[in-house]
Amino acid sequence: MTDGVRPAPAAVDGPVLVIGTGLIGTSVALALRRADVEVLLSDVDPSNLAIAEQGGAGRALQDHDRPALVVVAVPPRFASQAIADASTRYPDATITDVTSVKQQVVEEAVRLGADPVRLVGGHPMAGREVSGAAGARKDVFDDRLWVVTPLPQSGIDHVIQVHRLVSACGAYPVEMTVDDHDAAVALVSHTPQVLSSVLAGQLVDADSDHVRIAGQGLRDMTRIAGSNVAMWSDILAANAGPVADVLDGVIDELRRTVGALREMASRDEAVRGTEAVAGVLQQGVEGQLRIPGKHGAAPSAFREINVMLEDSPGELARLVAAVGVARVNLEDIRIEHVLGRPSGLVSLYVRPEDTDRLVRSLGVGDFDVRV
Amino acid sequence: MTDGVRPAPAAVDGPVLVIGTGLIGTSVALALRRADVEVLLSDVDPSNLAIAEQGGAGRALQDHDRPALVVVAVPPRFASQAIADASTRYPDATITDVTSVKQQVVEEAVRLGADPVRLVGGHPMAGREVSGAAGARKDVFDDRLWVVTPLPQSGIDHVIQVHRLVSACGAYPVEMTVDDHDAAVALVSHTPQVLSSVLAGQLVDADSDHVRIAGQGLRDMTRIAGSNVAMWSDILAANAGPVADVLDGVIDELRRTVGALREMASRDEAVRGTEAVAGVLQQGVEGQLRIPGKHGAAPSAFREINVMLEDSPGELARLVAAVGVARVNLEDIRIEHVLGRPSGLVSLYVRPEDTDRLVRSLGVGDFDVRV
Repeated sequence: MTDGVRPAPAAVDGPVLVIGTGLIGTSVALALRRADVEVLLSDVDPSNLAIAEQGGAGRALQDHDRPALVVVAVPPRFASQAIADASTRYPDATITDVTSVKQQVVEEAVRLGADPVRLVGGHPMAGREVSGAAGARKDVFDDRLWVVTPLPQSGIDHVIQVHRLVSACGAYPVEMTVDDHDAAVALVSHTPQVLSSVLAGQLVDADSDHVRIAGQGLRDMTRIAGSNVAMWSDILAANAGPVADVLDGVIDELRRTVGALREMASRDEAVRGTEAVAGVLQQGVEGQLRIPGKHGAAPSAFREINVMLEDSPGELARLVAAVGVARVNLEDIRIEHVLGRPSGLVSLYVRPEDTDRLVRSLGVGDFDVRV
Repeated sequence: MTDGVRPAPAAVDGPVLVIGTGLIGTSVALALRRADVEVLLSDVDPSNLAIAEQGGAGRALQDHDRPALVVVAVPPRFASQAIADASTRYPDATITDVTSVKQQVVEEAVRLGADPVRLVGGHPMAGREVSGAAGARKDVFDDRLWVVTPLPQSGIDHVIQVHRLVSACGAYPVEMTVDDHDAAVALVSHTPQVLSSVLAGQLVDADSDHVRIAGQGLRDMTRIAGSNVAMWSDILAANAGPVADVLDGVIDELRRTVGALREMASRDEAVRGTEAVAGVLQQGVEGQLRIPGKHGAAPSAFREINVMLEDSPGELARLVAAVGVARVNLEDIRIEHVLGRPSGLVSLYVRPEDTDRLVRSLGVGDFDVRV
């Protein structure tokens, strides 16, 4: 589903040392091997290291090796020390990392002795992680964004070296300051997680009948509340300040909304309250439109086509096949749930220019289509 | 995808008058016609009425008609008056409605002269509405929940009559008081809408690069923020008090969370803050588990199977077909997005007992599966 043609990236100066051969580290190593870069591997756990070597991710680091670039891919709480150690041991190497929070990690690394001139942080936006060491793949970063966070002191050669690393892994570099990066993930990742958890938490003591009538909206809003608690505790700990700042803004807006709702409920202030609530909803519509869609287009650029499927096996497969026959790219597909199980209503999301062709094709297949 | 066998419902005493032949009203009429109930139709708009009649939903109301049951299916702001008028005009009829908010509508109707003994409100949980009058269908309510809200004064015969209406339409009745109903929808529907709008609203003034790195979590959390502003303003206006009450609880919890995050960020209180944040996340996990899954099972009862698709056309269709070949029921399917377009990672949700069979079948089809 990715674009077939990829520009050849400028070569990375090797060898590259990957410290930490977990899912991300091994995937970086495999991506670099695909680009014919020499890769050295190290891990505190010899069996992890052996798996990565056997998987063709590179060879084990030896004492005499002198990497030109070091990628620190250890868990967040070990990252600062690993960065500082690598900086000391390889005094000419560019040092980067893949930690999902930057400011705290980098500051601590410099305090521990890392050379800020050679330190250029990174954060590959590799999406939802598929867990397990066996999940490492050379194409995990293809077409992904990879945030690169130089320090004010970072040397341009080192910044360029990390950009080349990103390109060699198949990803697109996006440069930000460390503070900017942390504010960004606080807004688009960490705050949504807290909101989902808090909303879902309201259900714990709710009446069973109340929860029973939940629909797709609540399902969407609480899906990520099911995420791993320990992992998210670590992430939030490492970015607590920026997340608290974003949440303060959310709380202010919610309080304004509650005030407007109470006005709505009173006869005297109903008009003012209604206008304020409509304003909140309108802001939401506008904010949602900013989330990028395919090739940067707004998601509203997708057309939703609803199809009511008959109650018989294989209908979903027949539907997806019909989309393929129409030579239409499916941007997304959603199955509506009723009483917690799938209903017959399936929503297909396609580009506007594909709508007519798809609807015609589905009509030929005798599907019950509601555009 | 619905269960094939449906118990024959006790007959509704007809004729049933449906006032308002929009999507819901016409669907009620069609469902009743399917159950061989005599249906009378009325609408202020003669063309709406004509479409419903031509669609086989019943015949136009005449002056001499004496309905045994009246279903008021007009927009919320006209519902109270329509209920009161029907109650006065047909002094023996049971009166019900389909308005999505109950307390305000019913109170106003009684104030306008509706007889509370014969008034038993209702709210079919018909899920996401497929808009347009042509969207009316006889099976819209099949296997749905339909909240029935008797008043303390409601006569038992009238309550039974509305239960029979619900069953005749293919739905399952769930009885609640009007206050209980409004608190329930405030929690599971209206509050999630406000949270989604407020979160999405935070993106309006955000840096473009920040929004660019958004992932699936933010997409899920802001999907319903794109809903119709006018419709939601009306809904929130009619249930402003209960929504404000739920939001007050959410705000309290968010403030506690912000406090805990600020403790986390300080060296002294980090442990206490970390415990509190983990508690919020854990509550979220537990709350999310309460949302019903298939046949009332928790959603955790579904197993997620991740499949990495190759970049070639028709792979999604081949995958769905393989699921069908394995004779496995797909509970849900999700396509992960990268840079706003689909990546190769597709998540299939199935029942645990189907997992092994499906994984074997996908292996035969040479799919790249990550359980």
